Amino acid sequence: MVRRVGLSTGGGDAPGLNAVIRAFVKVAVGVHGLEVIGIEDGLAGLVGTPRIQPLSFREVRGLLPRGGTILGTTNRGNPFRFPVRDATGSVSEVDVSSQVVESAKSLGLEGVVMLGGDGTLDIGRRLMDLGLPIIGVPKTIDNDLSATDATFGFDTAVGIAAEALDRLHTTAESHDRVMLLELMGRNAGFIALNAGLAGGADFIVLPEIPYDLEAILACIERRRTSGSHFAIGVVAEGAVSKHGELSLLGDAAPGGNARLHGAAAKLEAELSRAGCPLEIRTTVLGHIQRGGTPSPADRILATRFGVEAANLAARGDWGKVVRLRTPDIEAVPLADALHTHRVDPEGQLIRQAEALGISFGR
Amino acid sequence: MVRRVGLSTGGGDAPGLNAVIRAFVKVAVGVHGLEVIGIEDGLAGLVGTPRIQPLSFREVRGLLPRGGTILGTTNRGNPFRFPVRDATGSVSEVDVSSQVVESAKSLGLEGVVMLGGDGTLDIGRRLMDLGLPIIGVPKTIDNDLSATDATFGFDTAVGIAAEALDRLHTTAESHDRVMLLELMGRNAGFIALNAGLAGGADFIVLPEIPYDLEAILACIERRRTSGSHFAIGVVAEGAVSKHGELSLLGDAAPGGNARLHGAAAKLEAELSRAGCPLEIRTTVLGHIQRGGTPSPADRILATRFGVEAANLAARGDWGKVVRLRTPDIEAVPLADALHTHRVDPEGQLIRQAEALGISFGR
Amino acid sequence: MVRRVGLSTGGGDAPGLNAVIRAFVKVAVGVHGLEVIGIEDGLAGLVGTPRIQPLSFREVRGLLPRGGTILGTTNRGNPFRFPVRDATGSVSEVDVSSQVVESAKSLGLEGVVMLGGDGTLDIGRRLMDLGLPIIGVPKTIDNDLSATDATFGFDTAVGIAAEALDRLHTTAESHDRVMLLELMGRNAGFIALNAGLAGGADFIVLPEIPYDLEAILACIERRRTSGSHFAIGVVAEGAVSKHGELSLLGDAAPGGNARLHGAAAKLEAELSRAGCPLEIRTTVLGHIQRGGTPSPADRILATRFGVEAANLAARGDWGKVVRLRTPDIEAVPLADALHTHRVDPEGQLIRQAEALGISFGR
Amino acid sequence: MVRRVGLSTGGGDAPGLNAVIRAFVKVAVGVHGLEVIGIEDGLAGLVGTPRIQPLSFREVRGLLPRGGTILGTTNRGNPFRFPVRDATGSVSEVDVSSQVVESAKSLGLEGVVMLGGDGTLDIGRRLMDLGLPIIGVPKTIDNDLSATDATFGFDTAVGIAAEALDRLHTTAESHDRVMLLELMGRNAGFIALNAGLAGGADFIVLPEIPYDLEAILACIERRRTSGSHFAIGVVAEGAVSKHGELSLLGDAAPGGNARLHGAAAKLEAELSRAGCPLEIRTTVLGHIQRGGTPSPADRILATRFGVEAANLAARGDWGKVVRLRTPDIEAVPLADALHTHRVDPEGQLIRQAEALGISFGR
Repeated sequence: MVRRVGLSTGGGDAPGLNAVIRAFVKVAVGVHGLEVIGIEDGLAGLVGTPRIQPLSFREVRGLLPRGGTILGTTNRGNPFRFPVRDATGSVSEVDVSSQVVESAKSLGLEGVVMLGGDGTLDIGRRLMDLGLPIIGVPKTIDNDLSATDATFGFDTAVGIAAEALDRLHTTAESHDRVMLLELMGRNAGFIALNAGLAGGADFIVLPEIPYDLEAILACIERRRTSGSHFAIGVVAEGAVSKHGELSLLGDAAPGGNARLHGAAAKLEAELSRAGCPLEIRTTVLGHIQRGGTPSPADRILATRFGVEAANLAARGDWGKVVRLRTPDIEAVPLADALHTHRVDPEGQLIRQAEALGISFGR
Repeated sequence: MVRRVGLSTGGGDAPGLNAVIRAFVKVAVGVHGLEVIGIEDGLAGLVGTPRIQPLSFREVRGLLPRGGTILGTTNRGNPFRFPVRDATGSVSEVDVSSQVVESAKSLGLEGVVMLGGDGTLDIGRRLMDLGLPIIGVPKTIDNDLSATDATFGFDTAVGIAAEALDRLHTTAESHDRVMLLELMGRNAGFIALNAGLAGGADFIVLPEIPYDLEAILACIERRRTSGSHFAIGVVAEGAVSKHGELSLLGDAAPGGNARLHGAAAKLEAELSRAGCPLEIRTTVLGHIQRGGTPSPADRILATRFGVEAANLAARGDWGKVVRLRTPDIEAVPLADALHTHRVDPEGQLIRQAEALGISFGR
Repeated sequence: MVRRVGLSTGGGDAPGLNAVIRAFVKVAVGVHGLEVIGIEDGLAGLVGTPRIQPLSFREVRGLLPRGGTILGTTNRGNPFRFPVRDATGSVSEVDVSSQVVESAKSLGLEGVVMLGGDGTLDIGRRLMDLGLPIIGVPKTIDNDLSATDATFGFDTAVGIAAEALDRLHTTAESHDRVMLLELMGRNAGFIALNAGLAGGADFIVLPEIPYDLEAILACIERRRTSGSHFAIGVVAEGAVSKHGELSLLGDAAPGGNARLHGAAAKLEAELSRAGCPLEIRTTVLGHIQRGGTPSPADRILATRFGVEAANLAARGDWGKVVRLRTPDIEAVPLADALHTHRVDPEGQLIRQAEALGISFGR
Repeated sequence: MVRRVGLSTGGGDAPGLNAVIRAFVKVAVGVHGLEVIGIEDGLAGLVGTPRIQPLSFREVRGLLPRGGTILGTTNRGNPFRFPVRDATGSVSEVDVSSQVVESAKSLGLEGVVMLGGDGTLDIGRRLMDLGLPIIGVPKTIDNDLSATDATFGFDTAVGIAAEALDRLHTTAESHDRVMLLELMGRNAGFIALNAGLAGGADFIVLPEIPYDLEAILACIERRRTSGSHFAIGVVAEGAVSKHGELSLLGDAAPGGNARLHGAAAKLEAELSRAGCPLEIRTTVLGHIQRGGTPSPADRILATRFGVEAANLAARGDWGKVVRLRTPDIEAVPLADALHTHRVDPEGQLIRQAEALGISFGR
């Protein structure tokens, strides 16, 4: 009898998900003779009538360069707290985890390979405890999982952000302006830090290093006295102020970037008061960072994750997560892969950036 | 004695300004033996102590692919209403036009070649009346000058916007979302219309066609019933509502895109009420649209404008503007080049878009 | 009864073919209620057992940004001289045109919309004489059809070539080298001319202007004396020598670019003899120029062609070709659309390029 | 007295050299107060009258995104075998190493920071023995230095190659063709392997794995029987045949790619004989791979190398090379950094590729 495994993608999309799916199917089916069942919209596809699609060579043809996920994903993919709308329209959360486990079993799935971040992988760990074998593939565009040297999607996001910074440079220089670019990163500032380094930012504001507006003003002023009448600043979504002021931007909810504008207006006023009347313009890159074709490095990393996840599934080596330990892909226990990390304010990369004259507002 | 001409760039920057400067200098100096003086920050460089830079082959080397303008530009470049700050810090507008004319003459400039939009070119016409010979090079990223088939910068901006739409597509499809992308265009919607066509938008909201929220809801609903649980909408900055509601976005000032979020929230609520609970996400592309390296088509157009402007200056043929009348560059009187135009709501391009199923919300 | 029309793509592929197919189907099916039958591999799909595929909204979803053609194409698509292999393996050409016409009729096709260049459109004209109604959509990546201001694919090809020139610039400058880039264009040099202008080439060799090696040497020498120890040259495939020497490159057949190397070696020797020992490197861009996602301008042009072709078919207005007469898409008789044109050696674009100091080797 | 250090770039150019120069100068001058002297054209700038340029903040402004090297580089940069042309025009090699050392000392250089590959770094080691302190920054676009996890330029080259493969895919699919793309890599096939993985190649021919034409034919045949009438093959420059046939391509000298055409013709004949008459087309990407703006990852890596090289120079810690040991930049003795490595034919990456169905022709 053909062994059958499930495959699902959870959480926000990241460039490379389709490349994982393609590699997983090619190896699981082509090398190991498994049958692969794609589950739609995270694990939500196992709640109620199963929404699934068999995945063979045919379905994954042409997927390598395509962004997004053909399986769909959702932010309401936690079966332990599954949102349900009652007749009156109000929403409450219920635990449908046993339904998910039952559904997987009745579909004949030996286990489920879950692509997701720390939240999704933790759900996987709990489902494993309920009897559903799980293999995890780490996915976080923020690159903030400590178990792996890198996650796919991150290189693409940094590339899109760096290209935006290149574009802002020419306008900033032509107009004598301070340009602020807000990038993803609520808890971890790896995207902002790397994009800022690659795009030649003058200051970078990270969730990990509370900023002091005075320090940023001083940075801009230093540039001006050295003859550069413009500046480029990168601001992570989760930036926080040292003095408890409103953060430059507190959340990504509708209305959120009004706060970035507010901070910009304040910065502009301070600069003007200090005799440095530069215009400030803000841009919020938003969802553009996570869409589109993955970079070559992300395609390769995603592909390798997919191959090794298929090898694990074929061996029946459940309860594992694949990860990059340069230069190899390895497997580690699921429980080891749930930890996020953040930019180290005293780490080498920050010190190198500061040596280059980049201000972190401290 | 060597004849000397001035060169200035006014208004918002557009990809291709440096390509015009390069071509102008190469031909004015290399073919015609003129001397070229670059004026900094629009005509503001002729107010007070002149801020100028001689331009020869050396200064324009490598400029072809570079965005922005090495001469700088400014939004306060109108010498007829020049902002001056007094001792108390308050700003008033004064007429410094005669100072500009005198300054140009005392620098020995036979005339000034001005790169700018309809506002800048109109200033040029008035300076011409005051005795300063002017040649104009049309520059508007919005492509809304009726005298010319195309302006440089537009193709680049459409390209950046279309790439953003490609990226939003993968996320929209993976997450079952409606993605709104706000693009430049306060008065004329050419960028939004062309980007929407190139990027496969489902609906496009233009300044020229007041929108009805019901029509957009219907468009999304039609897609949903045909099996597409996502939609991509393009919104020009200057979008206006048919029913006098708040526009989706009224201006580009700080806080402006809070309105886009507001409209998105309203759209989301309406969709939910109609039993179609799609998430809506908004992105404001902003300044990224006008920066960076010009597209090949814009480099060629800008170069050809620069060559012909130099030929006009060499012939002493002042009072003219260069323009594209496909496939040639021609010169027409300055006064003929001041008219802007807008997307024709009954024009061929709109009809073709509607035949494709694109909704303009009417 | 539903009216049924055929759709085929002939000749070399060009970015935008799929965008035409998508637009044609959306409008023919969605607006006019026609049935569209895609014919595979040019008209070869109507020889023998028909190879066809019905095209509806579903099949054209996602086609806008995709290069190539889902219908396939072939260089052996001329039914009047159709290559047939006999039992001994030798190939002879036979006239299968009546078979194509019969096949189309027996499939119930009211007519066939053919996407192709002057050769394909001429085949269409002859099939029309045999009783098969035809509508043509001009397709030539070389942009050498005189009936239309532009053809899709050209802008993309110029863009890819200009990007290659940007890359070669940095290497040329770092290594003090002469870099030659061979581009498409056997009969017409529009791609080479436009890419050379957009990419800042120092000399451009076109099929339309026989080159003199001495003139190119002089161009390189002029640069050297002005302090630029490198040069970038663009060579169209069909470049010819003024003195009857071997062309820089005579054909694109296997082994062809050995000739480019030969010419480069000769140029290097001449330079060395003239006391200017620069290294020369050659690159043949080849098939990369015609692949990949179409540029936004090409997507729009292709889409508009597709819409109007569908409108013509719906009106039963056969025997026409769509074309761009800026800014509108028009229809003209098939017979008017068969003429190719070439770069005018005395035209405005060449004169502008020469004013910039670009040498055409004459 | 201000301490003074030299900086030179040797060997073939790689995207990121300018980013190293920029970071080195910013940190050496801005943090450590050193004076930096740029040496032109590798160490050739120290032979005869020194050709040097002082490097300060001003000279390195805007260098981050620029390809190539502002210092120039040369392939005749080995002072132990320096090519000299005598009166008769014939070239002989002489040892000018002591002249280089003397020249550096008379310029007051405390030492020289050399950017280069294993050849350049070995020259550095020998100059160190002659009394000239050296710090090395590894530079090889082939990524074949075993001392470091990665070198800058490699990610950019893989990206350019993968984009070319994306383009070839659409043409291959439309025309039912086999497309061969030749990539850099005479001794080590890392670029070909990674680009092939990222670009979805069907077969990859590497210097490290001698190929058997029969195996490649079988790969193409397998695809055909599964319904894919096209194939994409990647061939490294240094590909060798298992059976001692002519290599697909033996060298990169002029005329070299005639051999690729020859191999293609042979492959085409074999396919035809096997009843699989697919057309084959070849493309040689050449110098395009090493030019243009570095990728974000390469900009960051190059920048970090530059920062740490400056820190080493400031500490007087000569005789070292910087390297990446993920995630940190470290310093190791020069002698440890001279070893190249090659793709491991039994390594994880090859095994993963084979699991995906990619053939290496073995």
